[in-house]
Amino acid sequence: MYPISIPPVDREAARAARERIDALTKPVGSLGRLEELAERLASIHGGLPPFYERRTILIGAGDHGVAQEAVSAYPSAVTPQMVGAFLGGFAAINAIARAVRADVFVADFGVAADLPAHPSLIDAKLSRGTDNLAHGPAIPLERVETTLERGREVFQTLRARTDPQAIALGEMGIANTTSAAAMICALTGAQPHEVVGRGTGIDDARLRRKVEVVEGAVARARGGDWRSIASQVGGYEIVGLSGVLLAAAQARIPVVLDGFIVSAAALLARAIAPNAIDYCIASHRSRETGHALALRELGLLPFFDLDLRLGEGSGAALAFPLLEAAARMIVEMKTFAQAGVATADAPIEA
Amino acid sequence: MYPISIPPVDREAARAARERIDALTKPVGSLGRLEELAERLASIHGGLPPFYERRTILIGAGDHGVAQEAVSAYPSAVTPQMVGAFLGGFAAINAIARAVRADVFVADFGVAADLPAHPSLIDAKLSRGTDNLAHGPAIPLERVETTLERGREVFQTLRARTDPQAIALGEMGIANTTSAAAMICALTGAQPHEVVGRGTGIDDARLRRKVEVVEGAVARARGGDWRSIASQVGGYEIVGLSGVLLAAAQARIPVVLDGFIVSAAALLARAIAPNAIDYCIASHRSRETGHALALRELGLLPFFDLDLRLGEGSGAALAFPLLEAAARMIVEMKTFAQAGVATADAPIEA
Repeated sequence: MYPISIPPVDREAARAARERIDALTKPVGSLGRLEELAERLASIHGGLPPFYERRTILIGAGDHGVAQEAVSAYPSAVTPQMVGAFLGGFAAINAIARAVRADVFVADFGVAADLPAHPSLIDAKLSRGTDNLAHGPAIPLERVETTLERGREVFQTLRARTDPQAIALGEMGIANTTSAAAMICALTGAQPHEVVGRGTGIDDARLRRKVEVVEGAVARARGGDWRSIASQVGGYEIVGLSGVLLAAAQARIPVVLDGFIVSAAALLARAIAPNAIDYCIASHRSRETGHALALRELGLLPFFDLDLRLGEGSGAALAFPLLEAAARMIVEMKTFAQAGVATADAPIEA
Repeated sequence: MYPISIPPVDREAARAARERIDALTKPVGSLGRLEELAERLASIHGGLPPFYERRTILIGAGDHGVAQEAVSAYPSAVTPQMVGAFLGGFAAINAIARAVRADVFVADFGVAADLPAHPSLIDAKLSRGTDNLAHGPAIPLERVETTLERGREVFQTLRARTDPQAIALGEMGIANTTSAAAMICALTGAQPHEVVGRGTGIDDARLRRKVEVVEGAVARARGGDWRSIASQVGGYEIVGLSGVLLAAAQARIPVVLDGFIVSAAALLARAIAPNAIDYCIASHRSRETGHALALRELGLLPFFDLDLRLGEGSGAALAFPLLEAAARMIVEMKTFAQAGVATADAPIEA
């Protein structure tokens, strides 16, 4: 199944979009990054984009054996508890989703608890958490592709349920910044001390332990191919989100990335199919050390610096109105000629 | 009438908001600037904020005699043409307003043309444009307070029409970056070369001329009180927007500031009533030189760096979903205790 092929984005549509944007009733370039976004959306859709009113936030959830190493401020029990909060509608991402008129779905890729069925919960569980990456592979090598496939199936379920025009990716998994940091180091060659951060807010002792754990795991993973890296230091929800991302790109649906952990999923997707990133849109730059590095590696420039470090898709969801604004701008605005407005070069008398 | 008194924001409500935010089911501080925003909104409303679903963008429009000095890339005829575009619904701000579900109103504070009546146009015209600030006062001294009063009346009209829970301010007026630059210099002591920028995109020759014009006007205005500064170098739409801002602050309605020109209106409002700025929220940092300086002077930190330099309220409008997200976060989220989720200190078993 993998590697897979992803259709190239439509450079000609991007060029046509740029031409149209430059003719609209505003000084050339005056909408800055909104113009870039409109171009990118045109390249993804192969023409004028939709308005993304059908927008879905997908939270990948999974547990991590490495939580035993005291690398997080929270116990693993918090993962299923927070999934319950997402499904109950009273977590941060739910409030933000209502503010931006988005649906929220949770995919259980590997939570270490039995989760009661819920209409917004997609069961994609392969294991009750990863093995402890401090001591050996987190995911059995032969299960890496299956996890990616589960991601593809989750995407297909979302399509069948709400047919989203854009997807924001988020995650929940106690200790998953440890796995994400190790993945980013192994996939990019960055050093653990550049990438490991405080996650949910750990103290100095836990931070030192986290760096040690990541150093050990990265030493094992580095130099391997993407399968071996995902196996050694991956997380079910992170690899699963890579699968969702690849499937969305194949379907030419834009994927809005959230923070640090989702950037690890994007780097894995890039290792599998480099042009998958052409379908991705960065939302915010989080406070987590290493997110800025991952975004630079991905060649993506975020829109916000809101000092977020929550995950759940919170930053990605906040970008939906920007997608809609960029799309409406290019579709709904008139050109100078259509509007009868004078340009710098061609005055039209009032 | 002026100076006027503005009620202090509610510091106790802000403290209570902070306490509640810290108890919500998320790591403390993990929503970063969204948490600060929720606190500020609580301080403005004196308690839990509304969701700002009734949101209005007000574009102040006016012409500038200084346009005769070739300081803009566009002729003054563009001001009424663009007002026509706003009212017709096909300008950038209309597309953005639809994306964020906001109303758009235009206040004519001084457009140099007769504008046909329209349900979304508020007539507040005092003059067909300012006098040329290169040669003398832009606005007769005795008309400064009247212009502020027109702003207050515009606010009252908006309240009667749509009763907005938040207002975004934008502007349209060919050559108004020249007036705004001079106002900012005169009100803050900054030097013209730090503040004057390319506006809609002028070439080097026009930029040099613009700096000269601003230097001359600032030399005349500097050291005067706010009335004299507004008279010497103000614009009808800029002073009018100061009046709207002051009236909104008196009514305890948050005011979302747009770019460079609106920041000049905010600085004038601050000179009249310093605590008016407690009701203001900065949206973006524009590409126009001097906007960052004005925001620093105002003590406001913007949310986006989108390289916008359009005006019209485009950046301010994009902040409405952030206000709603911050408000829903503090109102709709459950605390750890309510949600039955373990904290770092107090594990709750799943």
